[in-house]
Amino acid sequence: MSLIEVKSELIYNVTAPTSFLFNIAPVQNEYQFIRQEVITLNPAFPYAFKEIGTLGNRIIRFSGNPGQLQVSYQATVELSQDRDNPPQIEENNYSDLPDEVLPYLNPSRYCESDKLGRFAMQEFGQLAPGFLRVRAICNWVHQSLEYVPGTTDARTGACDVLLQKTGVCRDYAHLAIALCRALCIPARYVSGYSVGLEPPDFHGFFEAFLGSRWYLFDATRMAPTNGMVRIGTGRDAADTSFATLIGAATLEQMMVSAQELTDDISLQSNGADEAISTV
Amino acid sequence: MSLIEVKSELIYNVTAPTSFLFNIAPVQNEYQFIRQEVITLNPAFPYAFKEIGTLGNRIIRFSGNPGQLQVSYQATVELSQDRDNPPQIEENNYSDLPDEVLPYLNPSRYCESDKLGRFAMQEFGQLAPGFLRVRAICNWVHQSLEYVPGTTDARTGACDVLLQKTGVCRDYAHLAIALCRALCIPARYVSGYSVGLEPPDFHGFFEAFLGSRWYLFDATRMAPTNGMVRIGTGRDAADTSFATLIGAATLEQMMVSAQELTDDISLQSNGADEAISTV
Amino acid sequence: MSLIEVKSELIYNVTAPTSFLFNIAPVQNEYQFIRQEVITLNPAFPYAFKEIGTLGNRIIRFSGNPGQLQVSYQATVELSQDRDNPPQIEENNYSDLPDEVLPYLNPSRYCESDKLGRFAMQEFGQLAPGFLRVRAICNWVHQSLEYVPGTTDARTGACDVLLQKTGVCRDYAHLAIALCRALCIPARYVSGYSVGLEPPDFHGFFEAFLGSRWYLFDATRMAPTNGMVRIGTGRDAADTSFATLIGAATLEQMMVSAQELTDDISLQSNGADEAISTV
Amino acid sequence: MSLIEVKSELIYNVTAPTSFLFNIAPVQNEYQFIRQEVITLNPAFPYAFKEIGTLGNRIIRFSGNPGQLQVSYQATVELSQDRDNPPQIEENNYSDLPDEVLPYLNPSRYCESDKLGRFAMQEFGQLAPGFLRVRAICNWVHQSLEYVPGTTDARTGACDVLLQKTGVCRDYAHLAIALCRALCIPARYVSGYSVGLEPPDFHGFFEAFLGSRWYLFDATRMAPTNGMVRIGTGRDAADTSFATLIGAATLEQMMVSAQELTDDISLQSNGADEAISTV
Repeated sequence: MSLIEVKSELIYNVTAPTSFLFNIAPVQNEYQFIRQEVITLNPAFPYAFKEIGTLGNRIIRFSGNPGQLQVSYQATVELSQDRDNPPQIEENNYSDLPDEVLPYLNPSRYCESDKLGRFAMQEFGQLAPGFLRVRAICNWVHQSLEYVPGTTDARTGACDVLLQKTGVCRDYAHLAIALCRALCIPARYVSGYSVGLEPPDFHGFFEAFLGSRWYLFDATRMAPTNGMVRIGTGRDAADTSFATLIGAATLEQMMVSAQELTDDISLQSNGADEAISTV
Repeated sequence: MSLIEVKSELIYNVTAPTSFLFNIAPVQNEYQFIRQEVITLNPAFPYAFKEIGTLGNRIIRFSGNPGQLQVSYQATVELSQDRDNPPQIEENNYSDLPDEVLPYLNPSRYCESDKLGRFAMQEFGQLAPGFLRVRAICNWVHQSLEYVPGTTDARTGACDVLLQKTGVCRDYAHLAIALCRALCIPARYVSGYSVGLEPPDFHGFFEAFLGSRWYLFDATRMAPTNGMVRIGTGRDAADTSFATLIGAATLEQMMVSAQELTDDISLQSNGADEAISTV
Repeated sequence: MSLIEVKSELIYNVTAPTSFLFNIAPVQNEYQFIRQEVITLNPAFPYAFKEIGTLGNRIIRFSGNPGQLQVSYQATVELSQDRDNPPQIEENNYSDLPDEVLPYLNPSRYCESDKLGRFAMQEFGQLAPGFLRVRAICNWVHQSLEYVPGTTDARTGACDVLLQKTGVCRDYAHLAIALCRALCIPARYVSGYSVGLEPPDFHGFFEAFLGSRWYLFDATRMAPTNGMVRIGTGRDAADTSFATLIGAATLEQMMVSAQELTDDISLQSNGADEAISTV
Repeated sequence: MSLIEVKSELIYNVTAPTSFLFNIAPVQNEYQFIRQEVITLNPAFPYAFKEIGTLGNRIIRFSGNPGQLQVSYQATVELSQDRDNPPQIEENNYSDLPDEVLPYLNPSRYCESDKLGRFAMQEFGQLAPGFLRVRAICNWVHQSLEYVPGTTDARTGACDVLLQKTGVCRDYAHLAIALCRALCIPARYVSGYSVGLEPPDFHGFFEAFLGSRWYLFDATRMAPTNGMVRIGTGRDAADTSFATLIGAATLEQMMVSAQELTDDISLQSNGADEAISTV
């Protein structure tokens, strides 16, 4: 068990009536317990956290008027990750996959797995199926790409990334997800807070379904997997935007942080010896 | 209320052990009552219909061995469509949309709405919001595209379709969905059986969320909206394949039909006076 | 006849030995006479203008060492445009096109005319062939696109532009060229200096082959066609970069200007009554 | 010196007046001497071979009326290839490249080298520059792709091929060309007749500019480089279509062959010890 304090603050200049949706609060489940949380809207708006979908994503929605809007969130999260032994975690045959994970085999906007079938088989088809193959995909993505902010944008998908060989965390995740799905391994996108991320920011990583559960992976290796606090889960980044707004507002300032409050997180990269699951 | 008999028969030549998933049985809900259904697998396999997700899609899954596989489905479906008056059906402001329809605003693999924001605003931004605007989108798609089987494939998305100006029913639906989402109208893909479709086949159409419910649209105008029996619902065609198979099998024969058993279906195109909802 | 003074100044910070190629000097031909020109390199390098290809493009090439590099060009150009009467200018049948213009029917990197055959026929197929049809294409491009610097980059092609509906001068030209070629009208890209362009910059426009010669068009309408001084001609912008460099250098400052020295240029947009040719 | 007999026969069903352009006759230059050639049009049309552009491509153009059209070409070509020693052939610095080869560094419709800069550097940047690096590119393309007719079409470019990992000869050439250009090696497409090609067909390969001349490469390894008779040269396949037609005609039959008449062609693959040049 570890204790992590997460914080985010977003300041907008709102120039016309605008509808906001925020997805910045961590999910609450048996592996991720929110001891305390506080969200402050300034000016104050009536709001309520709502849990949407079957994945536990928690959103707040409200309409804002012109002027400055400040959204501050702070929470203390108790993380009880499950750890399994990588070499013992197997892939499933298609026929053995639970019904509910099947949608995560489908191609999505930013993970065009349907186009990468031969590519994935050529690069990874010879490897033994299992957790270690997904780790090999992460290693390959890590080595193939260069982390260069500004080289991709909201329209960039896995195929673009594969060609241009640069991206940021969401692009690393999208490419790894697309390759997994192309190999018939269910995979999905996770947004979150990450201890140790430099510079501090919201993070994007992914999960693959192996054995009988979802395991966390981060192809960027920029933060330890065991310091990740899940916010949103979805097919790709389209499902987990931290902020969606319809109207006219400019993000003027953003501050994100994740600090461990206890000492039991030994920073650990994806290359480490454990398979971590939090759902 | 109308009564429709739907049938499908798929014959595969299976050349290696193969996992099958079929999504050919209609959804059952208060608007679509399945009076009777029968599925025959030859050779016989143990199977069960399972309702997956929150959309009621019903699938059967099983593994097949080399040899011929014949899947025959037949059902009698009682369709109780709700009909509303188009000019009275309004679009929702983003802030008023129910949480559960929000995912259908996100871009998906075949409906890259994120790329079509200005395009949609330029073509449809001047029209009054509401059911009639979605119908205008359908009319535009219908007039823009030429229905040419063979010009698109499983990798073709709405942007491709918009450029090449040809496609089949799934492409018409994808383009219309992408344009709706780009205008902030939730939209999703529906596969189904359609009375009057020539040549008979599985059909693909779409739904837009307007007022407080989902309404059916078919930009192909190839079959009356009131003779559509819903099979699968999803973000786009990736979620509603009638057959998914992992292994080695070739579809050798396919027969699909939908016949009205009663007389109360007056064939009616999308240009008609009613707004039809079945969910 | 009109007299135009063109100037450009480029200042680079060179951080490693770098090979430079500049294409900033106007073409010299019977319609465009260079009365005087001066290029200053600081530090001084040996160089020579070379006329490459069959289109008269004039380049200088040299290698530069680390430090600041300043390239200043100034010329006085006598422009003797030919003017024809638009309604009398006809398109050619494919079989009547001269051999040497045929390559300008082929798709090129940024003008993917092969993908836009139906699109072009649908929008412009009903119009009478001739100069006025090309003007209609320009008008359509002008009305379809919004001029937004920063929304496109060096990888953006005509199909991207058509979907996203924004671009800068090179994107306007690429889209118009692609549509012309799709209609079997030879078209090519021209870079140049333009009197009256705001803000002053190098400009990109295009030519279509009609009747027995090439006519100038500018779908941006940002500068009068009769104040255009041709620099480079090619299949698309890939052939006419004003600067190509291999090494490491950053453009730190750029100044471009084009001033008429006489009074006989009445600023005239593409919508005006004349068809202008300078080759 | 070797002697090769090339033949092609194309039979069209013409259903409306149609303009034809054929580029099926080999180029004549000091390395490729046409001893004798005969073209037969049935029905007979007035025609003349014309040499277009600076590359020697020879075309015939004519207009055909409804009915059957048969085009038969036969020639005996004396091939005097130059052979150099691969390890001694170097790449050029950008600043040393002759002006006339510079256009073959530009991206073209089917060779989007501008998108593959990092990809090429990552795969081939560590190899010593020179002929052997281009051969390494060919080997890589050969191993990466699977030759599967029908998986690509006239709109498929190098980036598509790189993702989907299949193609035919033109796709192999396009990908290799794009990778060369991305590494600043001028490269261009060549269509031709090839001795030993199975099944017999027109072939597509490519040339890279190394040292002071153009060398032939064939990433498909389907035919010996020393049995290639050049027909058309261009930036990519867009410039070298063997037949272009505007109107309405269907290719009903096509026969192509290339036979050595002498014994001195020892079939030799790209992996062999010689560098072959024919221009």
